[in-house]
Amino acid sequence: MPKRKGMRTLEFTNRPVITAGAGAGGRKESEGPLRDEFDLLFTDSTLGEKTWEKAESSMHRAVVERALQKSGKALSDVDYIFAGDLLDQCIGSTFGLRELAIPFFGLYGACSTMALALTAAGLFVDSGAAKTCVASTSSHFCSAEKQFRFPLEYGSQRTPSAQWTVTGAGAAVVEAIGSGVHIDMATLGRITDLGITDTNNMGAAMAPAAYDTISAFFKDTGYSPKDLDMILTGDLGLVGSRLLSQLFFNEEGINIRGKHEDCGLMIFDLKKQSVNAGGSGCGCSAGVLCSHILKKMNAKQLKKVLFVATGALMSPLSSMQGESIPSIAHAVLLTSD
Amino acid sequence: MPKRKGMRTLEFTNRPVITAGAGAGGRKESEGPLRDEFDLLFTDSTLGEKTWEKAESSMHRAVVERALQKSGKALSDVDYIFAGDLLDQCIGSTFGLRELAIPFFGLYGACSTMALALTAAGLFVDSGAAKTCVASTSSHFCSAEKQFRFPLEYGSQRTPSAQWTVTGAGAAVVEAIGSGVHIDMATLGRITDLGITDTNNMGAAMAPAAYDTISAFFKDTGYSPKDLDMILTGDLGLVGSRLLSQLFFNEEGINIRGKHEDCGLMIFDLKKQSVNAGGSGCGCSAGVLCSHILKKMNAKQLKKVLFVATGALMSPLSSMQGESIPSIAHAVLLTSD
Repeated sequence: MPKRKGMRTLEFTNRPVITAGAGAGGRKESEGPLRDEFDLLFTDSTLGEKTWEKAESSMHRAVVERALQKSGKALSDVDYIFAGDLLDQCIGSTFGLRELAIPFFGLYGACSTMALALTAAGLFVDSGAAKTCVASTSSHFCSAEKQFRFPLEYGSQRTPSAQWTVTGAGAAVVEAIGSGVHIDMATLGRITDLGITDTNNMGAAMAPAAYDTISAFFKDTGYSPKDLDMILTGDLGLVGSRLLSQLFFNEEGINIRGKHEDCGLMIFDLKKQSVNAGGSGCGCSAGVLCSHILKKMNAKQLKKVLFVATGALMSPLSSMQGESIPSIAHAVLLTSD
Repeated sequence: MPKRKGMRTLEFTNRPVITAGAGAGGRKESEGPLRDEFDLLFTDSTLGEKTWEKAESSMHRAVVERALQKSGKALSDVDYIFAGDLLDQCIGSTFGLRELAIPFFGLYGACSTMALALTAAGLFVDSGAAKTCVASTSSHFCSAEKQFRFPLEYGSQRTPSAQWTVTGAGAAVVEAIGSGVHIDMATLGRITDLGITDTNNMGAAMAPAAYDTISAFFKDTGYSPKDLDMILTGDLGLVGSRLLSQLFFNEEGINIRGKHEDCGLMIFDLKKQSVNAGGSGCGCSAGVLCSHILKKMNAKQLKKVLFVATGALMSPLSSMQGESIPSIAHAVLLTSD
């Protein structure tokens, strides 16, 4: 049964468990520091499909199927699937999952989607509404560049603060019974907008949202950084990660350095891989969490991780209309014991 | 506490209640049969904004504020808001609601969004995760035409099977305690795709999804049409409504005529308003439900309504790539007693 803690946090007292996770990466991800961690690596970014969007859908489906395989569950065992992605009308998810015939709960949280999906799956399982759920998301560098920035063929220059959309996906099987990493709490984010308009600096736009949610989690639960092994943000990258540290220090005198890591900084080698401020995209945090982090948690190398996926909620059109970038961050407390 | 019934249906045993709803319409809606039912009518479709997207966001925010006002709740009383819309990256919702500072749960279900939002809000309240939630969605003829079809200035001809995107919005306040219409059950839909590729015939694409979900609801609960006062589909329009009747009759020998109504056929006068096969858009089913239908239910003129919002999950890009139209329908059983 979920129990409210403070203003925005939910405690899942039946302790839903991630019985299996799977992470996928593309070619650039296969050249990065986490290359040996992913369950699936697609060095051909087309996955044999005719378009980037179809490639993303294929990758999304593949990672869901792999996670289910690892959990020993069949498609027919899954009560509900929670998924979304960055593409217009979320076609990475809908076309990827349409053949699975699983009741589908569509989400939109931009790059915060994995935490939103885990919150929803956690609540469904915790409340008894479901026994087995899947939470999943994806992104693809080529489909995202084409939609949000420029066609790849244009060969545009990237600013130093720009992040590199990860070609990747992640899926987690969330169950009522089983062994694995527990989803113990969730804090849903509020939309935050401090007026950043530069879509090549999404870390700066998203950092205040991450601060708002993590700060709410601390207030609601009485936790502080010392109670956690890791505060893992989704994809703030280099600029946003520095801002998050500064915000905590300036606003609350809290030092999160030493505990804070960012999926966008873990997935690539920033010195060697020309990704400027680091990785981004729904598949960044989902892929890193569902492979590397779950492995470390299952091996008890990490026991308490606050996973905070961050999303920038603008569209190309809203930016062209001169709007700033509303952002959001959702957090889930993951425990291995 | 939610209780599973059959394969896909949830029963909300604590009976979350819609304590207030508000529906909004634009100019064409103000000329239709439900003109006196809406809480808000915007005969200037720009709402004083510079772009159609900003107009949609304004309308979305206005309807949420009106619903809260009717329920006697302040923004600060709302634990979570569940919302989404048709625009790329759901900017109708995110920009509309960003100033409200309410924890935001983003959904994507195309025109099925209102039923998805009511399911989520119902579960949060039923399980004790929240006391007060809002479920809302919007659509705007001009922003949708521009994005999905042609710029308005192009003056394109519409096929007879095409539907007219409603300029409208709906919001419902869902609470643990209070009087109003109860959300008693919810059946989440599966993605269904029988290969329809004509985006000017979405009723045909969505009818099989509506059939699949309503049929699952009947199987899971033992209900039949005679147990309901109304089966209210979202926006199948003329073509989809006929197909739904045929599917029930051909597949199961069930006659739903006499019980079946469609929001897309109620909101406009098809003979006089040049809307071809009827209304569509997230705001169609949400606006009709949250004004006209809730009023009838609160007056006990209707006591049991199965609200089945239907969504077509394609994007302009997927259609240009030759893809068919995956569809989905989610159902909630609403009871007034």
